[in-house]
Amino acid sequence: MFDLDGTLVDSVYQHVLAWQEALQSEGVELAVWRIHRKIGMSGGLLTNILLRETGVELSAERIERLQRVHADAYKRVAKQIQPLPGARALIAALTDAEIPWAIATSGRMETAAPVLETLGVSRDRVPVITRDLVKYAKPDPDLFLTAAERLGVSIQAASVVGDSVWDMLAAQRAHSLGIGLLSGGYGLEELERAGAYRVFEDPADLLEHLDEVGGRK
Amino acid sequence: MFDLDGTLVDSVYQHVLAWQEALQSEGVELAVWRIHRKIGMSGGLLTNILLRETGVELSAERIERLQRVHADAYKRVAKQIQPLPGARALIAALTDAEIPWAIATSGRMETAAPVLETLGVSRDRVPVITRDLVKYAKPDPDLFLTAAERLGVSIQAASVVGDSVWDMLAAQRAHSLGIGLLSGGYGLEELERAGAYRVFEDPADLLEHLDEVGGRK
Repeated sequence: MFDLDGTLVDSVYQHVLAWQEALQSEGVELAVWRIHRKIGMSGGLLTNILLRETGVELSAERIERLQRVHADAYKRVAKQIQPLPGARALIAALTDAEIPWAIATSGRMETAAPVLETLGVSRDRVPVITRDLVKYAKPDPDLFLTAAERLGVSIQAASVVGDSVWDMLAAQRAHSLGIGLLSGGYGLEELERAGAYRVFEDPADLLEHLDEVGGRK
Repeated sequence: MFDLDGTLVDSVYQHVLAWQEALQSEGVELAVWRIHRKIGMSGGLLTNILLRETGVELSAERIERLQRVHADAYKRVAKQIQPLPGARALIAALTDAEIPWAIATSGRMETAAPVLETLGVSRDRVPVITRDLVKYAKPDPDLFLTAAERLGVSIQAASVVGDSVWDMLAAQRAHSLGIGLLSGGYGLEELERAGAYRVFEDPADLLEHLDEVGGRK
């Protein structure tokens, strides 16, 4: 079960700057690294935490506007976003080996759809679980639980591949194994401390070492 | 002795995307996180390493053009760049306490000047050592050695404050003490492993704990 942003596509830094633009549009000044470390969480949770940290209070209406500005700012740059090295080859190798795989992202289908297209993922054949389909996004386990269910596999026999500590925490809460990737900009030790039992550089590096993480049917 | 980008001003992520734009303009595709982890090095070294990693060979002329595109792309967004929280208060507190301080950056004066202005740093009163003034930038120790000399202090009695592992490596090579800040987007353990004897979140957090790192004359 793959996370999307920072795990299969190189979109984290663009999301970070889109959130900064959205926060600034509501008068919230926040250093970029703090936003970076919250990417991968549900957008609602991310907003709550950032506002709590800055001590700013926004009405429900302004929070909704903030999320809208983020989505618009992100969509402006989404076309330039590329798959990470090895992403296409990795999912093709799993398909060839008849290992079932799915995508589980805290993002909404609205922002996920363009990058799924870049990645060549057909939603008819691959379960894509977005934030729209569950009550709580990461670090809650719901996205991964739903993905395992849709794949028809036991969550405890599945692995979660992600680039953020929120993926690793959600994997632990789902009683699944977490595999970390450095391609979202976290440090190796941050992912290990959050529960990753193995960390690779990016999808290409994971593919190279697939046998180390149960890469067979 | 302070690094500039990611240490006193919130400019790392903009530098990262400016480098990506420059590399793309020369046909070099590189995941953003790899560029992020090289920021803080000398631009020449950064270019060499990234080209070696991607196996691309560029002529000296195209490398110079690449560095020009980065500087131009960065200058387009430099006006939006803000000091990090506590940066102005920290340098004011040092000045008030008569603790000599300087800035030592791998950047050139051309890109550093606008953010120095935002920060309220007067080059007449504060030594600002840029890449233009030394033979080798970080992780070589030259920038910090020159800064200590200009301050008239022993390098071994001085501290280096920086957000990247290149600052911490340069500090070790200069036989100075390294203090890490998370505000450039590295993980805490990465900075510790590179030699930081203490890591804080940002300049505000460092100011709050100034007594822990020899903050008196």
